[in-house]
Amino acid sequence: MKRIAIYAGTFDPITKGHLDIIKRAAKLFDKIIVAVSESKHKNPIFTREERVDMIKNSIKEINNVSVDSYSGLLMNYLKKKGINTVIRGIRVISDFEHEFQFALLNKKIYKNIDFIYLMPDEKYLYISSSSVKEIASYSGNVKDFVNNYVENKLKLKFKKT
Amino acid sequence: MKRIAIYAGTFDPITKGHLDIIKRAAKLFDKIIVAVSESKHKNPIFTREERVDMIKNSIKEINNVSVDSYSGLLMNYLKKKGINTVIRGIRVISDFEHEFQFALLNKKIYKNIDFIYLMPDEKYLYISSSSVKEIASYSGNVKDFVNNYVENKLKLKFKKT
Amino acid sequence: MKRIAIYAGTFDPITKGHLDIIKRAAKLFDKIIVAVSESKHKNPIFTREERVDMIKNSIKEINNVSVDSYSGLLMNYLKKKGINTVIRGIRVISDFEHEFQFALLNKKIYKNIDFIYLMPDEKYLYISSSSVKEIASYSGNVKDFVNNYVENKLKLKFKKT
Amino acid sequence: MKRIAIYAGTFDPITKGHLDIIKRAAKLFDKIIVAVSESKHKNPIFTREERVDMIKNSIKEINNVSVDSYSGLLMNYLKKKGINTVIRGIRVISDFEHEFQFALLNKKIYKNIDFIYLMPDEKYLYISSSSVKEIASYSGNVKDFVNNYVENKLKLKFKKT
Amino acid sequence: MKRIAIYAGTFDPITKGHLDIIKRAAKLFDKIIVAVSESKHKNPIFTREERVDMIKNSIKEINNVSVDSYSGLLMNYLKKKGINTVIRGIRVISDFEHEFQFALLNKKIYKNIDFIYLMPDEKYLYISSSSVKEIASYSGNVKDFVNNYVENKLKLKFKKT
Amino acid sequence: MKRIAIYAGTFDPITKGHLDIIKRAAKLFDKIIVAVSESKHKNPIFTREERVDMIKNSIKEINNVSVDSYSGLLMNYLKKKGINTVIRGIRVISDFEHEFQFALLNKKIYKNIDFIYLMPDEKYLYISSSSVKEIASYSGNVKDFVNNYVENKLKLKFKKT
Repeated sequence: MKRIAIYAGTFDPITKGHLDIIKRAAKLFDKIIVAVSESKHKNPIFTREERVDMIKNSIKEINNVSVDSYSGLLMNYLKKKGINTVIRGIRVISDFEHEFQFALLNKKIYKNIDFIYLMPDEKYLYISSSSVKEIASYSGNVKDFVNNYVENKLKLKFKKT
Repeated sequence: MKRIAIYAGTFDPITKGHLDIIKRAAKLFDKIIVAVSESKHKNPIFTREERVDMIKNSIKEINNVSVDSYSGLLMNYLKKKGINTVIRGIRVISDFEHEFQFALLNKKIYKNIDFIYLMPDEKYLYISSSSVKEIASYSGNVKDFVNNYVENKLKLKFKKT
Repeated sequence: MKRIAIYAGTFDPITKGHLDIIKRAAKLFDKIIVAVSESKHKNPIFTREERVDMIKNSIKEINNVSVDSYSGLLMNYLKKKGINTVIRGIRVISDFEHEFQFALLNKKIYKNIDFIYLMPDEKYLYISSSSVKEIASYSGNVKDFVNNYVENKLKLKFKKT
Repeated sequence: MKRIAIYAGTFDPITKGHLDIIKRAAKLFDKIIVAVSESKHKNPIFTREERVDMIKNSIKEINNVSVDSYSGLLMNYLKKKGINTVIRGIRVISDFEHEFQFALLNKKIYKNIDFIYLMPDEKYLYISSSSVKEIASYSGNVKDFVNNYVENKLKLKFKKT
Repeated sequence: MKRIAIYAGTFDPITKGHLDIIKRAAKLFDKIIVAVSESKHKNPIFTREERVDMIKNSIKEINNVSVDSYSGLLMNYLKKKGINTVIRGIRVISDFEHEFQFALLNKKIYKNIDFIYLMPDEKYLYISSSSVKEIASYSGNVKDFVNNYVENKLKLKFKKT
Repeated sequence: MKRIAIYAGTFDPITKGHLDIIKRAAKLFDKIIVAVSESKHKNPIFTREERVDMIKNSIKEINNVSVDSYSGLLMNYLKKKGINTVIRGIRVISDFEHEFQFALLNKKIYKNIDFIYLMPDEKYLYISSSSVKEIASYSGNVKDFVNNYVENKLKLKFKKT
């Protein structure tokens, strides 16, 4: 039986911290599906297609990882796919507090779900998509936080606006 | 002397967690007033009248509970009513951090106020009005989190929009 | 029906913060029983009798408060007394984290229990029996934290040792 | 060599808590620059000029404090000024959690930076610009939280809207 | 390649919460080694042999789980075994704070280590070996927290002392 | 007027994290006194003299730092020395929670005191004297956490016992 896990998020955009989690998860599972949530209410600066494209570019050298996208509740997406293992990256302590509530609520709705928490390398513990966007919006250097492809997309995005 | 306490909130909408707190408070006090805050800045999806109506429907079997509503600062409402005991439900640890600041600020303004913190049953520790709304907005099942009357109102609300 | 609540603790020794909680609780309930836990494993510096005596001295002007003591689990004491309402004072945020775990564990053992959390006046938010003992052990001034009777008992205790 | 430090923020408006931090910092350094961030994304209710004006009025009796303003990333402002010591006020525990992430991210971008954390007097531990604005918006009394000049500006602001 | 992970701890004694984590881990990995730390400095009430015995009894129906024991640093044990994946159960938020520090310190010593955090079922979120011991020491009922075999060992242990 | 600050602690033993804080403080003040608390109740493994000696060895290249020691309350030591500025290093979030209580209690006793919180370099965020001792006690490598002199003292200490 193949072990498959979902790593879901908005990925607006994917950071080196996300990639670190994906690589760790890819070693633990036979297959990882990175699932891009539409997350309209979060007003992402990149379209769902752009976010999927940046992830595809970032993971092309990892064999057992694919990208998908969904809208609505994560739980409904999991049920549709028949997968009940969810990878979560944890960066700071406050993250976990929210994670706890998220996990317990979701377990109320979908009993069989299993959450697996992974911690990125120390270098990536303080990076978030939103801090990357803030820095990029002021032409700050984000080379340490995202890969080249994403860095260029950020530059183009903030030139346009 | 009658012991009266206020249980204030936005209640957008009232959840089974809120109801659990109301029932616990009703055993401790002679009278509980559930006070619906207008909370315009929170952009509630239900009007103040709808929120009051859902609470009225939910508490009709508890004798010593009534519903009221107010706008503006809780402290001003308390002063107007001449009541200085406030019931607060606490769900998660992060809640309490905010509660602390809220309580100390309010005590600066209204010295005599007493905050009483109650914890709902474990089943309701992870429910919030906002998670209920998110689940309902994607036609998710909220039966475990709100009663039938509220469930129907949520269905109608999300059909309309 | 009389509303009775237990306020349990080690009280080694009782502080002005404890007294503030007792006074608030005494306004909310018909009767408060301050229950001194033997707490052998905490190696209290005062005997159970001394701790009871200091509380008795401190509450003599509050009509509806009495003092009792117990050893073993709080839950067993509550069952024996037929009381299921427990007052808890909360001082700092970290307190509450421990409280959460304590409450949920106890509710597993004794379903009907109700925990009521009260916050002392801001002046007493940072006082604990252990910090009082540490200060007193170095002949520091503890007048702000305990009443005269307790202050003298602390002086005697640290003279002896 | 003169010791200079930056105290940056939105100051919408400056509170007595901010002032308390400024006074403490002014004793530790030869010169303090209070740097008003434009913070467009926070939708401040006062313009940058109004915020600078209120600070100028509040600090006029402290010799070694001046006011400046900037837009964009704090790090870029620090580099431009050639200053790498940043004063941060900490009010509640949750503050510090955010501070930690902020500090570590900024140190990634600007290695030499030094963050100095100061705690205001206990009286100001629970005051924030946003709670001051909320209270003022309902004509609540904010005398304890801001000085007279700011109080009047708040009254004018909320009369207009 | 077989995926093996270590689940290390003092297990004084093993609880239903530990067992829940073991079962979740056993679904994710080809093999789980439950590694009992001697933990002399924690003064366990059960000998290392007794703790191993209770685990063996508890896991006998799970095929891919074995029990081992070690003394000294977890990192040294991992190196000796050539395993770098460590399962950690997380129960409460405060747990995670300690976990963070533990993980980062260990990664400093043993770069390749991967920590995997799993959350037990909600029922077991508030159980710890130490609370089980406290309850059992007063002849409290621990049936909900440990299995029959462990329950009997606890009874014998507290009869003796 | 010379700006002098105290950096007090048990330093059992001094770590690279402590040293990082001392260096940062030495840039901000004219003089730093590292004050070794006797801390009998913490059962330090090194005598007060050994701890002072290790610090002296570690700071010999920093001109404006000296070492002293004291027993009893920090506040009494500060009063005796006529110094009211105290440097505190903060490593993890939980640190700060305790710091808050410590600061507020001390300010109650000694009004004029000023606490200055500094954060060590990211590399040292997860180091504590107690984790260093635990690792050293099992002959683990502590080169990254303490300097050579202290490393040797740790080796000698754990050989003896």
